[in-house]
Amino acid sequence: MSAAPFRINTLALVGVGLIGGSFALALKKAGMVGRVIGVGRSAANLEKAREMGIIDEVVADAGVAAARADLVLVAVPVAQTGAVFRAIASQLAPGCVVTDAGSTKQDVVVLARAAFGAKLGQFVPAHPIAGAENSGAAAARAELYQGRKVVITPLPETAPAALERVRAAWLACGAQLHSMQPAEHDAVFAAVSHLPHLLAYALVHEVALHDNAATLFDYAASGFRDFTRIASSHPEMWRDICVANRGAILAELKRYQGQLGELQAMLEAGDAAALEAVFERARSARELWLKRQ
Amino acid sequence: MSAAPFRINTLALVGVGLIGGSFALALKKAGMVGRVIGVGRSAANLEKAREMGIIDEVVADAGVAAARADLVLVAVPVAQTGAVFRAIASQLAPGCVVTDAGSTKQDVVVLARAAFGAKLGQFVPAHPIAGAENSGAAAARAELYQGRKVVITPLPETAPAALERVRAAWLACGAQLHSMQPAEHDAVFAAVSHLPHLLAYALVHEVALHDNAATLFDYAASGFRDFTRIASSHPEMWRDICVANRGAILAELKRYQGQLGELQAMLEAGDAAALEAVFERARSARELWLKRQ
Repeated sequence: MSAAPFRINTLALVGVGLIGGSFALALKKAGMVGRVIGVGRSAANLEKAREMGIIDEVVADAGVAAARADLVLVAVPVAQTGAVFRAIASQLAPGCVVTDAGSTKQDVVVLARAAFGAKLGQFVPAHPIAGAENSGAAAARAELYQGRKVVITPLPETAPAALERVRAAWLACGAQLHSMQPAEHDAVFAAVSHLPHLLAYALVHEVALHDNAATLFDYAASGFRDFTRIASSHPEMWRDICVANRGAILAELKRYQGQLGELQAMLEAGDAAALEAVFERARSARELWLKRQ
Repeated sequence: MSAAPFRINTLALVGVGLIGGSFALALKKAGMVGRVIGVGRSAANLEKAREMGIIDEVVADAGVAAARADLVLVAVPVAQTGAVFRAIASQLAPGCVVTDAGSTKQDVVVLARAAFGAKLGQFVPAHPIAGAENSGAAAARAELYQGRKVVITPLPETAPAALERVRAAWLACGAQLHSMQPAEHDAVFAAVSHLPHLLAYALVHEVALHDNAATLFDYAASGFRDFTRIASSHPEMWRDICVANRGAILAELKRYQGQLGELQAMLEAGDAAALEAVFERARSARELWLKRQ
């Protein structure tokens, strides 16, 4: 670790989108970072990031970027994470810390164990809860993480100094830090994020498959719009999340299908009281949740 | 019909909530109505409506109010509609027109046929698409229907002059008028409104049933908030809609369960390409819909 542990001399962003870009902007604003170097698939996006002052330099190779960095943020779609880890593992200097921003954590930990070997202590798995429909560097902003949660899922092997470096960076972004085991993280987000995305995609797809889909969409109103907002999310990102966390998502999906089966039975029986009781409990739970926000 | 068919001398609101109250405010603003009299269950709500200038007078009995009116809007929860129709049927003067604002139409038509008999031609079934989480007179506003759709489902027996009276009133509120058969109306709204409400209630209820519900809600974020917004809707109203339209809702629910079954199979097979294809088609359909709004 450097003598000044909460100052980052060179930050390498592997993936310069909304998540990585906002992280860099926030750290720059906090005066916590010297130079930011960026690696990405799209030259146009990288050029935009340079124009916006997110990155100071484009580096073609993730390994080269990591070799020059003291902090590396890997913020790519989940399916690319393994390849990035393998590309940077041999290049990491002893004082360099690697973290990620993946929406799933057990799969990332498996990939990290396979790639980093003896350097595993330098890796800190993390998940900033700041999804948005917009993506790319153009959507990045320094305030994105202000008041948002960041869940860190440290491993038994994680070096305390590496954990502190990552915690300090997220705190400088204005985030609230939380700690969980990777398996608990994945189960929680399967229930409150991954399943709702799947359900929203399913509804829009199902409506679109009707013979009278055009008429149906004509009469869809604000309730439909809000319910399906997350069905405008990035298909590649959500494909990767679904595959990476499919065990936990399947468990939640089956519970939900059981719940729908109960509602179906209430409808078939015309059981108004049972339906109202479910609606009332759901509304109460949601109102209580809103009050605690 | 009166000599000036598009001027309402006395409007009777049976049910002075968001829907009825906003209708009265809009007609008053348009100068289309003389006096508004209101009937309701809650004295406090009626007093609020009088303070807000929605109604000019409270009348205790729906039949008495209808006898004095040339237009009656029945805007009560669906389960109370039949009782209101029976209370007013014998009191309707020949020139009086009755309309409703129910979210389901086939059940309302059955009730109207049973209650109005030879006066059925004076009844115009309608559904303004302007749901909101807020309810009661306090939430009413003259602009609620500006640019919103109102679906009218006229019957073979509906008198053309009665239809014209109701159309003129909604046009004066700034609404866009659409016409449908009652069965088509109920099928369309089962798909784009009733089913999404059921799905949102089911998700919140299912999350609340988890042993770790408090943790789950702690990590629920903006995607969950928007997906479940309609689960804060009025349980009594949605109970009534579900019972009234259960045939169409069950048909949509079964289609949706079939769609979830397909997604489950894709997850179990780890079929990333198939998942992405569904997500991509859903996103494209939604983006196309948003562009047309």
